[in-house]
Amino acid sequence: MPELLTSTAKEFALAELPHWTLSENGNAIERTFTFRSFARAFGFMASAAILAEKMNHHPTWTNTYNKVDVLLTTHDAGGLTELDFKLARKLDRLCEA
Amino acid sequence: MPELLTSTAKEFALAELPHWTLSENGNAIERTFTFRSFARAFGFMASAAILAEKMNHHPTWTNTYNKVDVLLTTHDAGGLTELDFKLARKLDRLCEA
Amino acid sequence: MPELLTSTAKEFALAELPHWTLSENGNAIERTFTFRSFARAFGFMASAAILAEKMNHHPTWTNTYNKVDVLLTTHDAGGLTELDFKLARKLDRLCEA
Amino acid sequence: MPELLTSTAKEFALAELPHWTLSENGNAIERTFTFRSFARAFGFMASAAILAEKMNHHPTWTNTYNKVDVLLTTHDAGGLTELDFKLARKLDRLCEA
Repeated sequence: MPELLTSTAKEFALAELPHWTLSENGNAIERTFTFRSFARAFGFMASAAILAEKMNHHPTWTNTYNKVDVLLTTHDAGGLTELDFKLARKLDRLCEA
Repeated sequence: MPELLTSTAKEFALAELPHWTLSENGNAIERTFTFRSFARAFGFMASAAILAEKMNHHPTWTNTYNKVDVLLTTHDAGGLTELDFKLARKLDRLCEA
Repeated sequence: MPELLTSTAKEFALAELPHWTLSENGNAIERTFTFRSFARAFGFMASAAILAEKMNHHPTWTNTYNKVDVLLTTHDAGGLTELDFKLARKLDRLCEA
Repeated sequence: MPELLTSTAKEFALAELPHWTLSENGNAIERTFTFRSFARAFGFMASAAILAEKMNHHPTWTNTYNKVDVLLTTHDAGGLTELDFKLARKLDRLCEA
């Protein structure tokens, strides 16, 4: 099982992910992705779903029209691990050109 | 714009949708769909996304692994309209054999 | 039903779509989309599927890993109509930044 | 790399997959999946795409409206391996209730 990150490690990892914020309890990271249309939002989700399953690490995500709110945490570990930051970086990259 | 349904009309429509419940404020209906795997949950979402866009009526939905929580409301009308029940019936049908 | 386009109209429409070519028999247009990964190719397909169903005009498309070969024709009309070029433009736009 | 299957092994594996046929050159297996709608066909593809990427084994597949023609082969090995039959069984299972 992946190890829980220390507060310092979380801060360090978040510093490189300007679009993500720590949840109130410090156990998850969150980002809202906004797209030009529902079709584009769902295309992003389809790509992301494939990457998530491959990592065997799944988001909790909410979609309304052109917005996708993503929350990442490692349930088995009870908080944030390197897996969450790895998936966050992959999702960010999907939205770059 | 579709008309808001009366309380009686909502009750009548919900009686035919045993898996759905009225939200606390009465302005939305909700159902949790549970699947055997993340892959099946996302396949359902892909079919549902296509139907939703075709109706130009989109859910607010949250996915975590094999579960999909769907909330339907008609934002423009400020509550429940026939569109919500129409989409609910389409989503139910996707899960039948 | 949409009208078949004349040869002149096809040439005119294709001139604005540099990535698309006319099929040998002149009844379809074709483009291969290439992506950085399977996940991105499938994300494109998910967005495109939503747009296609909304137009009620569906591609014949083949995917292998990071490539998607799209063929557009209007079956009901027996050849190319404005619908094909409209969908082609929408698919092109999905791949822009 | 997975090993190429012998003719006997292929016949044995195909005997358990009544919906699949050997391609003419014996290097691939093929099945056409037919659905009630485009939305359902694409939902199947979304589930299948997730499973395929997880196996790191991808189909060559063609979709037209409610039909999906799937061809499976192991490119690296130059023919059929156990991976193809494993994915075929997974795809069949997606279509069961």
